[in-house]
Amino acid sequence: MSQGTAVDGTRTGVWFVGARGSVATTATLGTLAMNAGLAPRTGLVSELEPVAVAGLPPVEGLVTGGHDVIETPLAHRAQVLADGGVFPPALVAALGAELAAADSRIRLAPRRDTQREAAQAISDDIRAFRDEHRLDRVVVVDVSSTEPPAESKPELDNLAALESALDAGSAPLPQSSLYAYAAFRAGCPLVSFTPSPGATLGALTELAKQQALPWAGRDGKTGETLVKSALAPMFATRALRVRSWASYNMLGGGDGRTLADPRAAVSKTTTKGAGLDAMLGYHVDGPMHIDYVEDLGDWKTAWDNVSFEGFLGTRMTMQFTWEGCDSALAAPLVVDLVRLTAKAHERGENGVLGPLSFFFKDPLGSIDHTLAGQWRALTQWCEQLGARA
Amino acid sequence: MSQGTAVDGTRTGVWFVGARGSVATTATLGTLAMNAGLAPRTGLVSELEPVAVAGLPPVEGLVTGGHDVIETPLAHRAQVLADGGVFPPALVAALGAELAAADSRIRLAPRRDTQREAAQAISDDIRAFRDEHRLDRVVVVDVSSTEPPAESKPELDNLAALESALDAGSAPLPQSSLYAYAAFRAGCPLVSFTPSPGATLGALTELAKQQALPWAGRDGKTGETLVKSALAPMFATRALRVRSWASYNMLGGGDGRTLADPRAAVSKTTTKGAGLDAMLGYHVDGPMHIDYVEDLGDWKTAWDNVSFEGFLGTRMTMQFTWEGCDSALAAPLVVDLVRLTAKAHERGENGVLGPLSFFFKDPLGSIDHTLAGQWRALTQWCEQLGARA
Amino acid sequence: MSQGTAVDGTRTGVWFVGARGSVATTATLGTLAMNAGLAPRTGLVSELEPVAVAGLPPVEGLVTGGHDVIETPLAHRAQVLADGGVFPPALVAALGAELAAADSRIRLAPRRDTQREAAQAISDDIRAFRDEHRLDRVVVVDVSSTEPPAESKPELDNLAALESALDAGSAPLPQSSLYAYAAFRAGCPLVSFTPSPGATLGALTELAKQQALPWAGRDGKTGETLVKSALAPMFATRALRVRSWASYNMLGGGDGRTLADPRAAVSKTTTKGAGLDAMLGYHVDGPMHIDYVEDLGDWKTAWDNVSFEGFLGTRMTMQFTWEGCDSALAAPLVVDLVRLTAKAHERGENGVLGPLSFFFKDPLGSIDHTLAGQWRALTQWCEQLGARA
Amino acid sequence: MSQGTAVDGTRTGVWFVGARGSVATTATLGTLAMNAGLAPRTGLVSELEPVAVAGLPPVEGLVTGGHDVIETPLAHRAQVLADGGVFPPALVAALGAELAAADSRIRLAPRRDTQREAAQAISDDIRAFRDEHRLDRVVVVDVSSTEPPAESKPELDNLAALESALDAGSAPLPQSSLYAYAAFRAGCPLVSFTPSPGATLGALTELAKQQALPWAGRDGKTGETLVKSALAPMFATRALRVRSWASYNMLGGGDGRTLADPRAAVSKTTTKGAGLDAMLGYHVDGPMHIDYVEDLGDWKTAWDNVSFEGFLGTRMTMQFTWEGCDSALAAPLVVDLVRLTAKAHERGENGVLGPLSFFFKDPLGSIDHTLAGQWRALTQWCEQLGARA
Ligand SMILES: NC(=O)c1ccc[n+]([C@@H]2O[C@H](COP(=O)([O-])OP(=O)(O)OC[C@H]3O[C@@H](n4cnc5c(N)ncnc54)[C@H](O)[C@@H]3O)[C@@H](O)[C@H]2O)c1
Ligand SMILES: NC(=O)c1ccc[n+]([C@@H]2O[C@H](COP(=O)([O-])OP(=O)(O)OC[C@H]3O[C@@H](n4cnc5c(N)ncnc54)[C@H](O)[C@@H]3O)[C@@H](O)[C@H]2O)c1
Ligand SMILES: NC(=O)c1ccc[n+]([C@@H]2O[C@H](COP(=O)([O-])OP(=O)(O)OC[C@H]3O[C@@H](n4cnc5c(N)ncnc54)[C@H](O)[C@@H]3O)[C@@H](O)[C@H]2O)c1
Ligand SMILES: NC(=O)c1ccc[n+]([C@@H]2O[C@H](COP(=O)([O-])OP(=O)(O)OC[C@H]3O[C@@H](n4cnc5c(N)ncnc54)[C@H](O)[C@@H]3O)[C@@H](O)[C@H]2O)c1
Ligand code: NA
Ligand code: NA
Repeated sequence: MSQGTAVDGTRTGVWFVGARGSVATTATLGTLAMNAGLAPRTGLVSELEPVAVAGLPPVEGLVTGGHDVIETPLAHRAQVLADGGVFPPALVAALGAELAAADSRIRLAPRRDTQREAAQAISDDIRAFRDEHRLDRVVVVDVSSTEPPAESKPELDNLAALESALDAGSAPLPQSSLYAYAAFRAGCPLVSFTPSPGATLGALTELAKQQALPWAGRDGKTGETLVKSALAPMFATRALRVRSWASYNMLGGGDGRTLADPRAAVSKTTTKGAGLDAMLGYHVDGPMHIDYVEDLGDWKTAWDNVSFEGFLGTRMTMQFTWEGCDSALAAPLVVDLVRLTAKAHERGENGVLGPLSFFFKDPLGSIDHTLAGQWRALTQWCEQLGARA
Repeated sequence: MSQGTAVDGTRTGVWFVGARGSVATTATLGTLAMNAGLAPRTGLVSELEPVAVAGLPPVEGLVTGGHDVIETPLAHRAQVLADGGVFPPALVAALGAELAAADSRIRLAPRRDTQREAAQAISDDIRAFRDEHRLDRVVVVDVSSTEPPAESKPELDNLAALESALDAGSAPLPQSSLYAYAAFRAGCPLVSFTPSPGATLGALTELAKQQALPWAGRDGKTGETLVKSALAPMFATRALRVRSWASYNMLGGGDGRTLADPRAAVSKTTTKGAGLDAMLGYHVDGPMHIDYVEDLGDWKTAWDNVSFEGFLGTRMTMQFTWEGCDSALAAPLVVDLVRLTAKAHERGENGVLGPLSFFFKDPLGSIDHTLAGQWRALTQWCEQLGARA
Repeated sequence: MSQGTAVDGTRTGVWFVGARGSVATTATLGTLAMNAGLAPRTGLVSELEPVAVAGLPPVEGLVTGGHDVIETPLAHRAQVLADGGVFPPALVAALGAELAAADSRIRLAPRRDTQREAAQAISDDIRAFRDEHRLDRVVVVDVSSTEPPAESKPELDNLAALESALDAGSAPLPQSSLYAYAAFRAGCPLVSFTPSPGATLGALTELAKQQALPWAGRDGKTGETLVKSALAPMFATRALRVRSWASYNMLGGGDGRTLADPRAAVSKTTTKGAGLDAMLGYHVDGPMHIDYVEDLGDWKTAWDNVSFEGFLGTRMTMQFTWEGCDSALAAPLVVDLVRLTAKAHERGENGVLGPLSFFFKDPLGSIDHTLAGQWRALTQWCEQLGARA
Repeated sequence: MSQGTAVDGTRTGVWFVGARGSVATTATLGTLAMNAGLAPRTGLVSELEPVAVAGLPPVEGLVTGGHDVIETPLAHRAQVLADGGVFPPALVAALGAELAAADSRIRLAPRRDTQREAAQAISDDIRAFRDEHRLDRVVVVDVSSTEPPAESKPELDNLAALESALDAGSAPLPQSSLYAYAAFRAGCPLVSFTPSPGATLGALTELAKQQALPWAGRDGKTGETLVKSALAPMFATRALRVRSWASYNMLGGGDGRTLADPRAAVSKTTTKGAGLDAMLGYHVDGPMHIDYVEDLGDWKTAWDNVSFEGFLGTRMTMQFTWEGCDSALAAPLVVDLVRLTAKAHERGENGVLGPLSFFFKDPLGSIDHTLAGQWRALTQWCEQLGARA
């Protein structure tokens, strides 16, 4: 059976925006490793029974490609990540040929004079990838550097206005939204793993609907926010009043470097902060910092201090530290999201996929931030997806 | 409206086994404080909308009493707890008269030559309390010192054998089970807030059924185990493999002193340890200690270290510290359990109340250890209880 | 023996700048409590044998007074601190009369049209305090709100230029330096417990020398920096290379509110940051935050994460949390510094007192930031002071 | 220059008891790596200026050998340690030949019918090593598995009695003491890096004196106890009263497995516990556990909780976590101790070397447990050693 063909014959494309970044590299190498029988499926939510019932496209059928603005060879990037403890160096050594092949499927992000032309070029690249590799469908996954929030502009609010602006040669779209536009135009579902604007603009949600395409977002929930979504409901359902919740994050790596720019960090602290008040039902204060600490590499250390009040006003404290490898936490979720979004596409679902809230810091299409509630929504949806077959 | 009469006219008795202990004293003082308008309802799960829908007996209608083997005045015990930061000293000062009245409703635990006679005396005390205070019902709550696990004996397995043994003058019952027997014989529902054997013996579950009485247990979930039941499902549903989970607990107070005895501690570490493997679906190793550190008083500090494995075998760590005031965490749950068990009794439910698993380390009548799952079970049950009205 | 007279007959005045603040209130109440036999001497470095050998003025001989810009009665402030757990409420109740007397010795900070006049008025108040209470000497202690760093101006560099500027009616001095000027002019030694400019300006160090007065500073070392000065030498003498040291501080209270202003915070993060590089011998990166978290009151929670490298490049981590009550940590040091500075004054020492580096984040007159080195310097000096007697 | 010859021409032998264990393997590989220019000297105290002044034998002149009861090839053991993150796998690959050579210098621990014969065989092996490699001297370093404390027996108290017992064919010596006896008989200085009895028995201290040999011990101070020796003096010199100090240690590896045996653990908890009370001047309670957690491998995670009291009785808390790689922390100290003990031998020092207390949990020959005090003692001694040259 050739690379990228699953037992069930399906072939699913994964088009990474940011294909040479930490997350994309880890997801790519991980897929190759699993398919070579060199790694177990630890971390893959889609392998758990209540999710697998959906009848998801097998990992064996995944073929990766993508865009990036840099040209660092994938094998080189993988080596750097392996040296940083993200995955065992032995995997990089063993998968040299496969990494080279994956590398050849990545293209330099098109630079054109107008956004109209750039969008066209991106769509063309994605279509070419689909055709060349005889893929049943391609899921576009945005794992590129975090952008600042979009400024509000009328031409971003509805599709007609956006098209006129693009026709007029103007460039209203943030990069992440340009990719979303191009993905939808190429008939591809989208996963927004970053907090960037992406498809959240009015014009693009409209386009997705028009194209009958499903999409999901945003900002993968992998660390402190994940823990919060497990812990905050404990305080809520036990009627313990949270007085303050402090969140200190340190990370290195490319993502850390990007977030050292306060403008980009706004997108992240916004998606990180959203859920707590919603889960508790009232506003909670507390500092939240994301600090770039170069020596941590792709690892993150988070420390949270929760001050809360119980019966008769007694004040208590809970603290946690989280020492996680961000890319190792993110990569399997990317694979899960591709499989689930591909299945939704196959089943004809469209619009934003609320049942995928389980995976995101800012769960578009859902108001539930609790991990357990999101898990129920996910597994119920998977059961339906599977039943419909 | 006189002390202990609720808006709805119901009067519910609470009979504490261990009525002068930390938990009972805090629950008693807290009830008095809430009824005097001196304290909010923070920490009371039964005041949250999805639980309150059950139509629970109001806090205003609660009247406390109980047994203890010591005679320390309640006001004195309350002062010691207040000095230790369990609740504000001002409450003790303000509620002097009410505490004295509550104190007068506590009796010395009967000592008799045979368990048959002792059981009779306990039942008599409870019935006298019910009659004297014109209570609609009395919920017996075991908050006495933790006992070692029961040794298995044939006469504990069925009711007929137990009755014969008691008739024969032998004393087969652990203390907590003697109280459970007496409670059931007096027609009272029971809440086992301790890990002691209580009503878990075959003979007693049979008696509860025979008397058509509901009961709930066991071992209030207030600290580290509570956090575990919120966190472990996160690892499970994210397919992260827990490698080891270390649990270190330090506490002072009466409970700490009792648990410094390794024989008693077995009951506690057993109920504490039960849930993790069940939630994860596999066995997890790791040290678990409960250490008596006198200077902590009624406060507990727990530290947990979770070592886990993610995608491609990458190893990560999460740690938490929990600094809680045990009695302040336990007391409102006791009030919740009394209200819920009283309601169940009113509605004619009998046998062990699985839907109360939310409150217990060892959730009798339920196999679900996850806090979120238990919360759903609880709130669904409350909805039904309320609807049936 | 009347209030403020020591066994040895000495009477030492303490003039607080910021006399109604948390630190001053705690130091005042603590002195009264110790003298009333209501509190032990825990936390007083000056009671330890190797320091006491200096032959220090007894606590019984201390009389407090001071300036503040607010008029909150001392007893009220003390009650608020006691409610926040800084000291036992019982002390406030027991020391009502003494607190009222102490309150009457505090004056409103003089407001005048020129700094020349203001300085004169401050000096007059201090002299009046000394005379009225027949004090052998008065040590002025700056425990007022932290100011931003001083801007450099030529008239701050030497005394003659400063005097001309003051004569000319201009107002070149930061508040803390105005108090330092007035203290020296009144013939009083000074302790700068804050990171404010105080006597560090060239003109004022000159004045202290001219007046033959000793002074000490700056910024009391009470929390995270204290721990750092104990731990950093461990890494240094074990040849372990610190890769990054992150310092997160949360605090409430008046000091926290002041430091929420980024301009004031600069003074603090500067004094806090100074020592680490000096102790290690190389520059170490890492985030440092001081966050105002209102609900913490006068308590501080600090969390530090130290990432270091050992033999063969192996990377390891140490983390600590510190939950301290800032005022309870600061107040005894204030008493220590008063006693030691008074002794130095008595012995005719002048200029900045390097041997008091043990007490300060920014140890003026010393280059040693290690706690153990500072302890040796302090105790050797105390031995000399005592021997000279 | 051939392997093991220093610039100054000296050749110093290192004879490891437990030569195939984690510490010995790491020290051996580290020495080879430094000499091949593949690793810096991080972690080597003996490279710091105030210690190097002693004029120590260079690392280039060290030649390792030793005894062990197992035959696992050194390269294999090194690979396992590298996989566990103790040092970079690349070093093992690069030093294959050197590791094989080092392996050939390790002998199987002699098994004989009597301790007299066994001691003779051990001495013979050490002498043969010295002769074959033309070594100026050999330092014997005990890094074998921890033994239980020695039972007291008259024949261990003085040398004559011991010799008679050995002559009589009896076997009174613990293994570690047998090696100490053999080392001294072979004219070699000894370093006891373990908490085992070793040379602490009366008969052996007598033998060392008689042979005019220096020795040092015991139990390398590498983790929690190291931190304690830096932190406890902070509490002491600040007059803060420690109420309890809890010490929880988790470790895997061979050492962890040995210490899972409660009999062996006694030796360790004894040396670990000794210092705290000495540094504080009063007895402090608190649990101390060493738990074997297999999945941690050669890494240790320690968590300490310090509860202390300050001014006016205010209670505060400090906690730390320490995540260290035990062997990476121990190995450079072993190299330091060899160099320092060799120098002492060269200079004719004999008996137990108190100035090496800096390196040990149980600092034989010294009563100072404070890290800073020990550092001063060490550096003063080094200055003298250097000056005498
Ligand atoms: N790792 C996690 O746990 C996690 C969790 C949630 C969200 N995320 C988000 O995922 C994204 C990727 O994270 P990462 O750690 O891989 O970061 P990274 O910096 O390693 O990778 C980002 C990649 O995007 C590329 N890129 C930048 N601009 C581009 C453009 N215009 N077109 C195409 N490629 C472009 C960069 O060259 C780089 O290779 C970030 O936005 C991050 O916030 C990561
Ligand atoms: N506080 C919590 O968070 C918590 C959580 C779960 C379970 N529990 C359990 O609740 C129980 C009470 O805890 P506590 O902190 O109040 O302990 P405590 O020691 O303060 O109180 C126990 C009381 O029981 C009394 N007692 C002992 N034997 C008795 C007998 N035979 N008959 C009647 N009374 C008797 C004792 O005299 C004492 O007053 C313990 O079993 C504890 O394990 C407490
Ligand atoms: N508490 C500690 O552990 C600690 C440690 C080191 C340094 N310090 C420093 O000590 C100082 C006092 O801390 P605090 O917690 O008591 O703060 P606080 O805010 O409670 O008290 C400061 C007092 O100074 C008064 N004040 C302000 N401007 C004044 C002026 N011009 N003249 C006279 N009084 C004035 C304020 O009214 C207030 O009463 C701060 O600068 C703080 O940074 C405190
Ligand atoms: N690693 C540290 O940080 C540290 C710190 C202080 C003390 N120590 C002590 O150092 C010693 C070694 O630690 P480790 O981690 O290398 O342990 P380890 O278990 O990896 O190594 C011990 C070695 O000793 C060998 N051995 C056992 N009995 C022997 C005998 N009779 N003769 C010769 N060899 C024998 C074993 O076969 C093994 O190879 C332990 O006693 C430990 O307590 C280690
Ligand atoms: Na804490
Ligand atoms: Na950690």
